[in-house]
Amino acid sequence: MPSLYHHPMSAASRFIRLVLNEYELETDLLEERPWERRADFLALNPALTLPVYVDESLHAFCGAGVVAEFIDETQGVFHKQHRLLPEDPIQRGEVRRLMDWFLIKLEHDVTRHLVRERIFKLLMPKDRGGGAPDSKALRTGRANIHQHLRYIDWLAASRNWMAGATLSYADLAAAGALSALDYLGEIAWNEAPQARDWYQRIKSRPSFRPLLGDRVRNMSPVSHYADLDF
Amino acid sequence: MPSLYHHPMSAASRFIRLVLNEYELETDLLEERPWERRADFLALNPALTLPVYVDESLHAFCGAGVVAEFIDETQGVFHKQHRLLPEDPIQRGEVRRLMDWFLIKLEHDVTRHLVRERIFKLLMPKDRGGGAPDSKALRTGRANIHQHLRYIDWLAASRNWMAGATLSYADLAAAGALSALDYLGEIAWNEAPQARDWYQRIKSRPSFRPLLGDRVRNMSPVSHYADLDF
Repeated sequence: MPSLYHHPMSAASRFIRLVLNEYELETDLLEERPWERRADFLALNPALTLPVYVDESLHAFCGAGVVAEFIDETQGVFHKQHRLLPEDPIQRGEVRRLMDWFLIKLEHDVTRHLVRERIFKLLMPKDRGGGAPDSKALRTGRANIHQHLRYIDWLAASRNWMAGATLSYADLAAAGALSALDYLGEIAWNEAPQARDWYQRIKSRPSFRPLLGDRVRNMSPVSHYADLDF
Repeated sequence: MPSLYHHPMSAASRFIRLVLNEYELETDLLEERPWERRADFLALNPALTLPVYVDESLHAFCGAGVVAEFIDETQGVFHKQHRLLPEDPIQRGEVRRLMDWFLIKLEHDVTRHLVRERIFKLLMPKDRGGGAPDSKALRTGRANIHQHLRYIDWLAASRNWMAGATLSYADLAAAGALSALDYLGEIAWNEAPQARDWYQRIKSRPSFRPLLGDRVRNMSPVSHYADLDF
């Protein structure tokens, strides 16, 4: 069986878990803590990014974008109108633009600050960067989230799904990041009612259920995290 | 004719110019300064990343990864053994891993610090972030470059091209970044003789020639920048 090195609070890992669940691809989930710099993991992925997908012939695919393209080429292609990266090259361009938006830009502006400071630093030993959250980083993440929520709200208002008429990688990449932020109670959903409707729809999908069961030591989720009618 | 919004010193723009030149795809080059936040450019690409490729039907493709995949799907597919993203899904995974390495990791660790501090800040007005280079950012970029050079040297020693037997997007993404750093004289080629051989080979390709003519106001390249036998 293929395996996925992931962390329950890594937004990029959550994205790929949603992809695998949507396509009903069984995978061994292996929790990895990249800050430990395990020699075996470093050999698999010298960039130390998550997730890493290892197929049945033990080939490794490193990083969410690389894994998503591989899954599309080897699995998505058989799913016709349910393919999560649509056939048309122009639509593919829009889906990929939004994947980059959520995996790189939202990560850079918001997610890495809040998830690192509030979760990863609790789990890291002191000599690997662990410790109390840095209040400047928290402020940066919290200042940047509003503009992102406005943009997501606009996307949700103007389209059926994030990138167009059908569910795509763009929705799952967005949901990966937003669900990690929602776990921490960092999303003011009342600011973005259309984004909230979209999130409620995607959160109700069977693919999402395993993520709603995720828990991290010493940090419980906010009360509405697993609530489908939040 | 399609057009490419780019900047001569943006590593990601250089990568896509090399791709277009390798496939001999004529394109209108339009210089963009993202820090000016032009309304028309913001409408094209709200993330304000470079490059943006606009096809003949005026569809925009935003960011180097998205453009590279689109060019592969619509053009590369006709180039058989000269296709820059190889056919085999496993090899594609390795090419894409290295694209991410050079476009995201090297950019984050090294390129953005040195190019931003030494070039973009000269071009930016004060109220858009312009001014004297920040010495801490320069130190960070210069400290991180050595490990990257070692890795590139190892890749060049163990493979014919960066990702395997044939020239691929991985080489062009690497060359985009390294050529911008080389313009600034930031690469100690004597530390990495195999990388130097590889760079000499790629620099001699006709696709590279237009990049060797690039010049930025107030910042001349080092003397060996355009020298094919450096």
